[in-house]
Amino acid sequence: MTSNLKERLMPIAGKLREFEEHFNRSLGGHAGLIGEMAAHILDAPGKRIRPAMYLLSSGACPGGRDIEATPVYAAVAIELIHTATLLHDDVNDGARERRGRPAAGQLWGNLAAVLMGDHLFAKAFRILVDGGDQRVLETVSEASERVAVGELLQVQETRNFEVTEQDYLRIIGNKTASLFSAACEAGALTNGNDAERERFRDFGEFVGLGFQIADDLLDYLGDVAQTGKPSGTDLKSGNITLPLIYALQNAGDDGRHRVMEAVAQPAVNGFGEVVEFVRVNGGFDYARRRAAEYRKKALDLLSGLSESSYRLALEEVVNHSVDRQA
Amino acid sequence: MTSNLKERLMPIAGKLREFEEHFNRSLGGHAGLIGEMAAHILDAPGKRIRPAMYLLSSGACPGGRDIEATPVYAAVAIELIHTATLLHDDVNDGARERRGRPAAGQLWGNLAAVLMGDHLFAKAFRILVDGGDQRVLETVSEASERVAVGELLQVQETRNFEVTEQDYLRIIGNKTASLFSAACEAGALTNGNDAERERFRDFGEFVGLGFQIADDLLDYLGDVAQTGKPSGTDLKSGNITLPLIYALQNAGDDGRHRVMEAVAQPAVNGFGEVVEFVRVNGGFDYARRRAAEYRKKALDLLSGLSESSYRLALEEVVNHSVDRQA
Repeated sequence: MTSNLKERLMPIAGKLREFEEHFNRSLGGHAGLIGEMAAHILDAPGKRIRPAMYLLSSGACPGGRDIEATPVYAAVAIELIHTATLLHDDVNDGARERRGRPAAGQLWGNLAAVLMGDHLFAKAFRILVDGGDQRVLETVSEASERVAVGELLQVQETRNFEVTEQDYLRIIGNKTASLFSAACEAGALTNGNDAERERFRDFGEFVGLGFQIADDLLDYLGDVAQTGKPSGTDLKSGNITLPLIYALQNAGDDGRHRVMEAVAQPAVNGFGEVVEFVRVNGGFDYARRRAAEYRKKALDLLSGLSESSYRLALEEVVNHSVDRQA
Repeated sequence: MTSNLKERLMPIAGKLREFEEHFNRSLGGHAGLIGEMAAHILDAPGKRIRPAMYLLSSGACPGGRDIEATPVYAAVAIELIHTATLLHDDVNDGARERRGRPAAGQLWGNLAAVLMGDHLFAKAFRILVDGGDQRVLETVSEASERVAVGELLQVQETRNFEVTEQDYLRIIGNKTASLFSAACEAGALTNGNDAERERFRDFGEFVGLGFQIADDLLDYLGDVAQTGKPSGTDLKSGNITLPLIYALQNAGDDGRHRVMEAVAQPAVNGFGEVVEFVRVNGGFDYARRRAAEYRKKALDLLSGLSESSYRLALEEVVNHSVDRQA
């Protein structure tokens, strides 16, 4: 996290601590295998982007003056669903590391990792039900449906070199932008402002799209020391993302065929060749441009809001999500 | 399904058809991989015991005269969660067949099977949220939390020859009885009868326990042609169930050690040896006795209700669940 972002998040620092306490509590109370896996999860917390966006959206929307009254449970549920998704993503696709440490499936087996994901998913719904706000339940349950659909579409398009940018946007919109969108929408709902639902839903969607394009760029160009994830993971599992999609469309047949062979047999040399292919054919520049467009769309939606420390922080989160090193 | 049970279910035949239509619709609307996997699921429907128990509980509880007004959505959600659980159960534990056909993981890979399970799980919650009954949401979300806990406990106790009957009951109560219990409780709720919640919750729990003990007996003694599942599946994946737990507690050290070796290297001969060990040490008789006790507890709870075709059918479901061939 950059020091700039950290500073901007100061207005929600107390609430983020409250979130952490509630999140930890939601994973507690079990001994044995469940307790061990929960400890493994808590030991490497994520960046908590979704909870931050939830809280900031609550504060930034018109009528939101003080976020002290904003309940954190919806953010906890969304982060639990996100965590469950990470556990399931790792199944069988060769993922060995997650946040710089061995993936849960490597330590306890695929089955245990899957069931722990189910546990978190069920816990998330339990928390939402106990919260008792029908609109929040609708928002988050719709998003979690989208997540699974997006993930399945991604599996469907594995190693499909004909996959289009439109397919790609449908995949990342469902698998990633859905939860960003739900976090912002649920945040806006806390101030009882139904009219702002749409603005914050769309805002979260754009940030999520920009975030995932940036993530997919990092998979090609990122530094493992910073991302905690070795480069080329997507390619190894046959996940064709925007930089390569663009490059494949703009390359000659010769280059296409060589890259398709390299992807079929992913090795260290093969990956270098693909990176060069994407670079020469403008795939990285194009993906950066598309990410910047989503950043602009997101920022434009914020410009209609009155100035506040929450709005400033949201702007910083947008910039950080789209133009990041890890 | 025995002809006797079929006859007894006549009063809910129309509602079960309504359930099937709603269930099919809930899985529809997708092309590609999701559509193919959905078709695979719909192609081999389960026995629909949980939906039947939901509808019968609705009809049998005091004040329930006509089930025409009973909405089927809760039964659809419960059956979706059950189906999701089956998909996830098959991950990585060597399951090759399910309901007499290849398991989804064998056809589309573990990852796709996991994600399809997530899709069904999310869909179930979406349906419950749209239903808008907070009590049903509470009942089913609590049950789905229990399912994951039970499954994780089972993984934790894999190949643990010290596992006790108490551990076993905790596992099957959570992983299996939970959804039976939720189905009956939710059914009772449809008639607005909060006072009957507890009776039907307990009733479902007892039936679920008896059902699972019977299932575990079938894994030793069942005929693959009838169950659609090869014998010895539990043992192969290291799942020590009640018949063996009892036998291990009542055998001498010699027998114990030989069985533990046989389980460590599961082969056709090894399985025969374990079956003989369990038989000689009274494990099958004991498990049958325990199942019969749960059957009696369940029937006792029904005896307080006034006579109706629904109550008669529930009694038949109990008998069928505990004393079954498939």
